[in-house]
Amino acid sequence: MNDAATTGYMLEDLAPGMSVSSSRTITEADIVMFAGVSGDDNPIHLDHDYASSTMFGERIAHGMLGASYISALLGTRLPGPGCIYVSQNLTFKAPVHIGDTLKTIVSVREVNEERKRVVMDTRCVVGEQIVLEGEAVMAVKRKKN
Amino acid sequence: MNDAATTGYMLEDLAPGMSVSSSRTITEADIVMFAGVSGDDNPIHLDHDYASSTMFGERIAHGMLGASYISALLGTRLPGPGCIYVSQNLTFKAPVHIGDTLKTIVSVREVNEERKRVVMDTRCVVGEQIVLEGEAVMAVKRKKN
Repeated sequence: MNDAATTGYMLEDLAPGMSVSSSRTITEADIVMFAGVSGDDNPIHLDHDYASSTMFGERIAHGMLGASYISALLGTRLPGPGCIYVSQNLTFKAPVHIGDTLKTIVSVREVNEERKRVVMDTRCVVGEQIVLEGEAVMAVKRKKN
Repeated sequence: MNDAATTGYMLEDLAPGMSVSSSRTITEADIVMFAGVSGDDNPIHLDHDYASSTMFGERIAHGMLGASYISALLGTRLPGPGCIYVSQNLTFKAPVHIGDTLKTIVSVREVNEERKRVVMDTRCVVGEQIVLEGEAVMAVKRKKN
């Protein structure tokens, strides 16, 4: 007995090619807050002087920050509430710097009606550059049975 | 020219079986903060009434919260600062509830000196129950060349 705001897609309503995205400019605050929540205070994320001495040249965002935006799209929009996160593969392809505008995209690749599983392509891009990619498997309920 | 606080293990100092862990009791605040940072406001994480009506019976933590603790151990302790996150696979095996004490463990499985890569076993447990497991690949610098 859930209302619309708490109900995501049912299995029968999902089809390959369906896609949603979000976009945000990564700020110092996003990185500081992720460090606080995760406990990951690696200086590459928090220490300008240290980060300047590395191959990255500046502080970079936590890779898992992008992963958390993927998780947010899956959990709130496609498939949305009611689905269960089964697995996620992540390949970190390039760093994300403060000021980069990160676009996160999740798309239905495959719907397995028998197993009630949906395979999603998941990625984050900055401009044309893929910075994070992988796939997620979600368990999604059927309307019937 | 990094001091000890900002230097992790070098490749030659890593060996299969090395392991570190962290442990924390998951609070409502952890979930609320992760929702804020990620934007994942799925009601299964935030809405007691909704969550009570689901198979989980109560609000559960975001799966990516456990993943963020894995990332923290990798980035700050083993291998620690200086390593680069190449990839992470995650399988979500069981829900984590408020009040559960989550132990996160990362262990060196394989060191590939030629490719400068380390494969890590990564998992989160509540008591004896594995709630999240997977593997990470890290790029780690050599002392020489």
